[in-house]
Amino acid sequence: MNPPSTRIPVVEKVLSANDRIAAEIQASLDANKTFAINLMASPGAGKTSLIERTVTALKSEFAVAMINGDTSEAAFDAERSQRAGALSVHINTSGKCHLEAAMIRDALAQIPLAGVRLLIIENVGNLVCPSAWQLGAHVSVLIGSIPEGDDKPYKYPRMYSGVQALVINKIDLLPYVDFDMARFRRGVETLNPGLVSFPVSCRTGEGLETWLDWLRAQLP
Amino acid sequence: MNPPSTRIPVVEKVLSANDRIAAEIQASLDANKTFAINLMASPGAGKTSLIERTVTALKSEFAVAMINGDTSEAAFDAERSQRAGALSVHINTSGKCHLEAAMIRDALAQIPLAGVRLLIIENVGNLVCPSAWQLGAHVSVLIGSIPEGDDKPYKYPRMYSGVQALVINKIDLLPYVDFDMARFRRGVETLNPGLVSFPVSCRTGEGLETWLDWLRAQLP
Repeated sequence: MNPPSTRIPVVEKVLSANDRIAAEIQASLDANKTFAINLMASPGAGKTSLIERTVTALKSEFAVAMINGDTSEAAFDAERSQRAGALSVHINTSGKCHLEAAMIRDALAQIPLAGVRLLIIENVGNLVCPSAWQLGAHVSVLIGSIPEGDDKPYKYPRMYSGVQALVINKIDLLPYVDFDMARFRRGVETLNPGLVSFPVSCRTGEGLETWLDWLRAQLP
Repeated sequence: MNPPSTRIPVVEKVLSANDRIAAEIQASLDANKTFAINLMASPGAGKTSLIERTVTALKSEFAVAMINGDTSEAAFDAERSQRAGALSVHINTSGKCHLEAAMIRDALAQIPLAGVRLLIIENVGNLVCPSAWQLGAHVSVLIGSIPEGDDKPYKYPRMYSGVQALVINKIDLLPYVDFDMARFRRGVETLNPGLVSFPVSCRTGEGLETWLDWLRAQLP
């Protein structure tokens, strides 16, 4: 919710305070050699499924932690990630539409970062609000999902233009929906030229090796 | 975005001003015997597809108008609805995550309500923020989508608890995804007992007649 009458001064002040906390978080992550991802997507695009697959594949190589934000007390996502093998913390945003750096700072108090090489922050399912809030992560990753349709880059340009990697999930559904990959990619390329992307199916496992290799290559 | 430090007083004041405009809108709709729906959903759940189907089916019976809110200038949804046969107005929220009553008031200046029996307001694709803003519509309708997963009522309780009807779209994808309808329905029933729901496929047309009959029965 953006209170219109006071939006600009209030939000700028809050965002600036948020950015300071985010910078402190990143410094703490760097001191521990922990690489962090801010994972964003629509509700149901597959954030938790991607985390499950990622943790399962990488946990024998190094420790992974996960912080999950949801608008309610339902902690299914953190529980799924925990079962996959990541130390997981659930944040209830109490209806807020995005995560903020102060929430991440509080959650990190429950995670001993020493030894954790990868931290995945699962943002609230939302293609609008999370893009405005720095969390201290090193990269922002967006998941687009085939059944959402090929028009999403055009309709949510701030989200698509502000990320460093794009996972295109649910490619196993391509035969059953109307999705023009060329149109989708044109929209992405216009907003975010050269954006690295990973077509995957978290359901079947297709394409995940390329994503995992990219992830390994990012680690400090 | 919710500026945390000033959230409660500022937002309450803005919401109260918003509610006054919403009440004026509803009075104007009632004077013209126009029934209005606030249609909400995640990005890509099928809001525009449902509107296309609805307009195509009903336009021989009465005039339908549509107001569409998106975070960008991309007016695809209003264009699709216009082609289907509804007088359509696009609102660019310029990054805002929801529609507000004042935006609807401005859009209605472009729609001659006399003769329009059904107005569909297509909100920004977002399962969090739109639920807080009254727009003057008579009912709020939510679209849930099968590929989003069966956990959405549990994770977005404010959205699921605040609507008067639920369309469950993309049932044609049920054979290809993991979706437990009983779990989904338990979540809905807990939040919103007796909520009327319409399982449909906007792609194949399945289930739409029941939705259309319900809609006809709502008209003044």
